[in-house]
Amino acid sequence: MRKILVIGIGAGDPEQLTLEAVRALGEVDVFFVLDKGAQKHDLVGLRQEILRRHPTKPGHRVVELRDPDRDRSDLGTAGYVSAVDDWRRRRAELLRVLIRDEVPEDGCGAFLVWGDPALYDSTLGVVEEMLADETVHFDYTVIPGVSSVSTLAARHRIGLNRVGRPFQVTTGRLLAQGWPSEVDDLVVMLDAHCTFTRVTEPNVDIYWGAYLGTPDEILVAGPLAEVGTRIVDVRRAARERKGWIMDTYLLRRRRTD
Amino acid sequence: MRKILVIGIGAGDPEQLTLEAVRALGEVDVFFVLDKGAQKHDLVGLRQEILRRHPTKPGHRVVELRDPDRDRSDLGTAGYVSAVDDWRRRRAELLRVLIRDEVPEDGCGAFLVWGDPALYDSTLGVVEEMLADETVHFDYTVIPGVSSVSTLAARHRIGLNRVGRPFQVTTGRLLAQGWPSEVDDLVVMLDAHCTFTRVTEPNVDIYWGAYLGTPDEILVAGPLAEVGTRIVDVRRAARERKGWIMDTYLLRRRRTD
Repeated sequence: MRKILVIGIGAGDPEQLTLEAVRALGEVDVFFVLDKGAQKHDLVGLRQEILRRHPTKPGHRVVELRDPDRDRSDLGTAGYVSAVDDWRRRRAELLRVLIRDEVPEDGCGAFLVWGDPALYDSTLGVVEEMLADETVHFDYTVIPGVSSVSTLAARHRIGLNRVGRPFQVTTGRLLAQGWPSEVDDLVVMLDAHCTFTRVTEPNVDIYWGAYLGTPDEILVAGPLAEVGTRIVDVRRAARERKGWIMDTYLLRRRRTD
Repeated sequence: MRKILVIGIGAGDPEQLTLEAVRALGEVDVFFVLDKGAQKHDLVGLRQEILRRHPTKPGHRVVELRDPDRDRSDLGTAGYVSAVDDWRRRRAELLRVLIRDEVPEDGCGAFLVWGDPALYDSTLGVVEEMLADETVHFDYTVIPGVSSVSTLAARHRIGLNRVGRPFQVTTGRLLAQGWPSEVDDLVVMLDAHCTFTRVTEPNVDIYWGAYLGTPDEILVAGPLAEVGTRIVDVRRAARERKGWIMDTYLLRRRRTD
């Protein structure tokens, strides 16, 4: 039986790899690297650096594949979900063939996933999709990693929750529909549009971070009303300089009790 | 200037330590271990095992201290917050003295924190509290770790979010007040009372895990209506056997679209 590992490798610092992940790298016959185009070149480079730094199985291969294009036009939520579903299906198709052709029958394939595979990452969905049509068989294991959210909190030296309180993890797209009820702490991911600028409440702090864990890391924190515009500028400049950006932030409503 | 490290060491498996955390262990002059009483003996033992496995600074010390008792009677949310505040203050008091007396002026002290320091952990709050009265000075750094929540998701091979959807991290105490609006995915922590038994909706799945990352790990998943009672039984038996339990779970409402 083939074995597939989905390995969380941390937010961007090769030192965030766990000992479990390091050990797993040594078992792998074929690494699958999904090249997301030029703008993600740095991330692919970081993955390759991880493989250079640690013992790998002699004769292991790295299979790079171009990620199928995804419809990124503004679709609304239902359209977004169906675009992701479609893209996931095509990616599963591609990978199914690759696993069959490239991973030996009793061998081990692996996906190296940024951050933690459980958090806004499509790999697990693709794996399930691959297994769904039963033309390829494998067992799979998930190795958790340090998420960009944990890294954001660590850099700002804050907790994600406050004592006895909940927090919500959401997307820029959802935040655009308004601050959800009953929570004062919001982690926002996948926000390409600086949706925090739409939050007009005066009593909100923001803890923002980009390229977390990498040498390019940028952090800004403070009252949203004061630092919001600066983040927009810093973000735009960084994105122009590097050609891509990955950022996340926590919005925290100051409590009056 | 003294340096204090708050190091996330993963959910319970010594292999979940990151390379960054391993390297940090080697800088530490004094490790502070907060003994939470007999029931947490296993956890202290695991921390000690981590120190045995990795290179540490010659002459480093481990300072164990008994955690001040916390009022754990049922207080309601406001009472709970104030009990935690009070306990945090007393813990800060104790530690302030210890840091001054035990950590050399230019030395390094460290707290090894289960999971990730950003998630329902009091260490960062205690550190801030220690600095607040300005009788002790130090710089501090947080090293993120793999959380029990990431480990739960990895073991069940699921994402915490669904595509384009939010999820909320909350406590048993808050879940007892009802399922929060606008979210279908709830991670529940700090639930000593199996509050999931109060969820009566028929279309909810539960992914439960106890002692995550340790050799005692137990996992149960399925429709809440079918497996809820089993989890209550399994949990009670495990707690009796070991004298303590640490568990967490995800509740996922099946979507009808």
